[in-house]
Amino acid sequence: MKVRRLNARSAEFEQQFRQLVSQQPVGSIHSEVHQLVAEIITDIQSQGDKALLQYTQKFDRVHVASVAELEISPQRIQQSLDQIDSQDLQALTCAAQRIDDFHRKQLQQSWSYKEQDGTELGQLIRPLQRVGIYVPGGKASYPSSVMMNAIPAKVAGVEEVIMAVPAPDGELNELVIAAAALAKVDRVFKIGGSQAIAALAYGTETVPAVDKIVGPGNQYVATAKRQVFGQVGIDMIAGPSEILIICDGETNPDWIAMDMFSQAEHDESAQAILVSPDGDFLDAVAASIDKLITNMPRRQVIQASLQNRGALIQVADIDEAIDLSNSIAPEHLELSLAGGEKYLPRIKHAGAIFVGRYTAEALGDYCAGPSHVLPTSGTARFSSPLGVYDFQKKTSLIHCSPSGASELGKVAQRLSNGEGLPAHGQSAAYRIKEK
Amino acid sequence: MKVRRLNARSAEFEQQFRQLVSQQPVGSIHSEVHQLVAEIITDIQSQGDKALLQYTQKFDRVHVASVAELEISPQRIQQSLDQIDSQDLQALTCAAQRIDDFHRKQLQQSWSYKEQDGTELGQLIRPLQRVGIYVPGGKASYPSSVMMNAIPAKVAGVEEVIMAVPAPDGELNELVIAAAALAKVDRVFKIGGSQAIAALAYGTETVPAVDKIVGPGNQYVATAKRQVFGQVGIDMIAGPSEILIICDGETNPDWIAMDMFSQAEHDESAQAILVSPDGDFLDAVAASIDKLITNMPRRQVIQASLQNRGALIQVADIDEAIDLSNSIAPEHLELSLAGGEKYLPRIKHAGAIFVGRYTAEALGDYCAGPSHVLPTSGTARFSSPLGVYDFQKKTSLIHCSPSGASELGKVAQRLSNGEGLPAHGQSAAYRIKEK
Repeated sequence: MKVRRLNARSAEFEQQFRQLVSQQPVGSIHSEVHQLVAEIITDIQSQGDKALLQYTQKFDRVHVASVAELEISPQRIQQSLDQIDSQDLQALTCAAQRIDDFHRKQLQQSWSYKEQDGTELGQLIRPLQRVGIYVPGGKASYPSSVMMNAIPAKVAGVEEVIMAVPAPDGELNELVIAAAALAKVDRVFKIGGSQAIAALAYGTETVPAVDKIVGPGNQYVATAKRQVFGQVGIDMIAGPSEILIICDGETNPDWIAMDMFSQAEHDESAQAILVSPDGDFLDAVAASIDKLITNMPRRQVIQASLQNRGALIQVADIDEAIDLSNSIAPEHLELSLAGGEKYLPRIKHAGAIFVGRYTAEALGDYCAGPSHVLPTSGTARFSSPLGVYDFQKKTSLIHCSPSGASELGKVAQRLSNGEGLPAHGQSAAYRIKEK
Repeated sequence: MKVRRLNARSAEFEQQFRQLVSQQPVGSIHSEVHQLVAEIITDIQSQGDKALLQYTQKFDRVHVASVAELEISPQRIQQSLDQIDSQDLQALTCAAQRIDDFHRKQLQQSWSYKEQDGTELGQLIRPLQRVGIYVPGGKASYPSSVMMNAIPAKVAGVEEVIMAVPAPDGELNELVIAAAALAKVDRVFKIGGSQAIAALAYGTETVPAVDKIVGPGNQYVATAKRQVFGQVGIDMIAGPSEILIICDGETNPDWIAMDMFSQAEHDESAQAILVSPDGDFLDAVAASIDKLITNMPRRQVIQASLQNRGALIQVADIDEAIDLSNSIAPEHLELSLAGGEKYLPRIKHAGAIFVGRYTAEALGDYCAGPSHVLPTSGTARFSSPLGVYDFQKKTSLIHCSPSGASELGKVAQRLSNGEGLPAHGQSAAYRIKEK
């Protein structure tokens, strides 16, 4: 198999590299689906359950008489958990516990302080009340995704977590339902696509409106999330998954090839890039790729991904590799090298960093503890892994003492006059103590 | 002046109240400006400086030969600060210091912990590199807004803060430029509207691309922010400003009337609502409104706002007032009553709470310390005041020890097989120690 081979010393490198990592943002305003999704949202807003049933019939080929029949009962959810294989249960439970442990470290508490004159300032930090979690149906329906989204919400103290997962042709993934039970999801509806996002955002007669929607989805889901943003909060618009591996050439090339495969097997637009100062090592990984690909069940997807968007890049040294990484702001960054931790201060942007030869990205995808919901497509420049902080909101608290209000009143009066807002000034002036 | 008077005991109340607080989200996908803004963004993306100059000429009537001429030099920025009135300088400096003090309490630090087998988990928390701040021009150009947006960014450690403020017909607000100097804004461009948002999001030959854009703006700015979201981070789509005042009837009615005016004077779509169990007090406030309005310089705006969207609402008791507040999730909530702090646990959603008769909202708008950039239009259900956390981003850190990787590898292998992702399983399996 031919995987793109680049060298940072080459004259064309900068242009080649820019082309390699460029991509169209998902759910873009220019996408063809924008208008279609806008119509679906309008229909759900105006016709509620009726429109939701129609779209579910149309897109998922599920025929029921009421949206209530699309809800999975708590008994049925518990049944999934009771009936799964014991080794699956053990693995899911271990992952759930570790995700819970890690996220408890993120819980923020309300805080306040008093100034000398008795004025108190602070922030109340409290959970969102109701959150929607979208879980894709069909082949990309993942129990790990349920846990990575729902557990941080529950750790934050969200009262009610509502899950939407389509059941195309009535098909459901039992492990997904079991994971929902483990993660203490409160209600599950078998709905999907833009219609599910609209139902969660605006509510219908049966589906309750939520305060925020999180979770991955196809372009219809992503476009719908962008459109309902403002009515509800959303997590982020996720693009194709990507990994950048920086290796000093001392890791087993089979391990690195398989780490690239684990990214590439997601879908054909996933991206796996290996950067190393060691050209012989890049040859060895290319050989491992050719050797290992033949036995991979998902080899067609892997091949398409690696040939379209994969690359093996030779650089002068690890520092240059980190510069490349900073210019991408990768979702996943694997530092497969000796003393990886000493490079951390130089890394400006990344969703998650996997340090050392033993930390395969796959461990983080399932059970290390941090959420695998990470900023893609360079958005690690400004956004963060999904966390408890996404399910807590803050309220500023201002409690002025009479003398504090008097002093602040003078400042506010002056500034509001400068802004041409005299009622602000008079409102402040009423609180100024007379001499 | 006739301000709407409602009573929660009336049969029509629920419908009246719902109508009162309903509103169309700003920057909506259904708005007429969507297409126009999309075209402007595309032009800036493809033609950079050239398109930015053309749109600035068209919308701001400013004719210059290059975008470089639209940048305000550091000398000119400093000059603004040197030349302002000393009382203005004193007030701005006091406000800047208090905003800085409050926001230092929000700084988050990186954290990590080690498990027994040596595996290390944590999060790196670091500032964004470059942030854009939008400041409206013309009559709503506010120095306080510059400080409330820029200071939290600088406290977070953002390397470069780029401000965009249009100068329609060449007109600039000197206090805005002075505030930019005080807040240590790094560069200022005289650009505005969707074209400024697009320039900051994608960069042009002269304007650097930023990682996040914050700050208020009209519907063109709001729509553009929604459209570039994903390419860059944005703060929020701000709607009309609102206040809900809950009063026990013991505050001076003139004070409450003026607090309502201070909200209403922003613009005609601003909303000021007073809720009290004391009907006589509502009469007294109505009388204060009639008495005080005659002397207000911005009385036409205040009248339009109060008549369109204002209300005096009588409720049974303070608890019922808080239920109403929770159903709105107000941007500003004033608790003008005795022992206000004891009601805080019952308040579910609010951007900021102003506790006690002395805490006029105006004090928070200018100088109490917390940012006045708050979630509007009910978005306090899921979002927070602008803060240092908006200018810090997180990166998950996973560093498995060999034995940690071996144990996690078994779990990941099991779960990935359940998800039909065998390369994930093999990548994990390589790290399992052989017995």
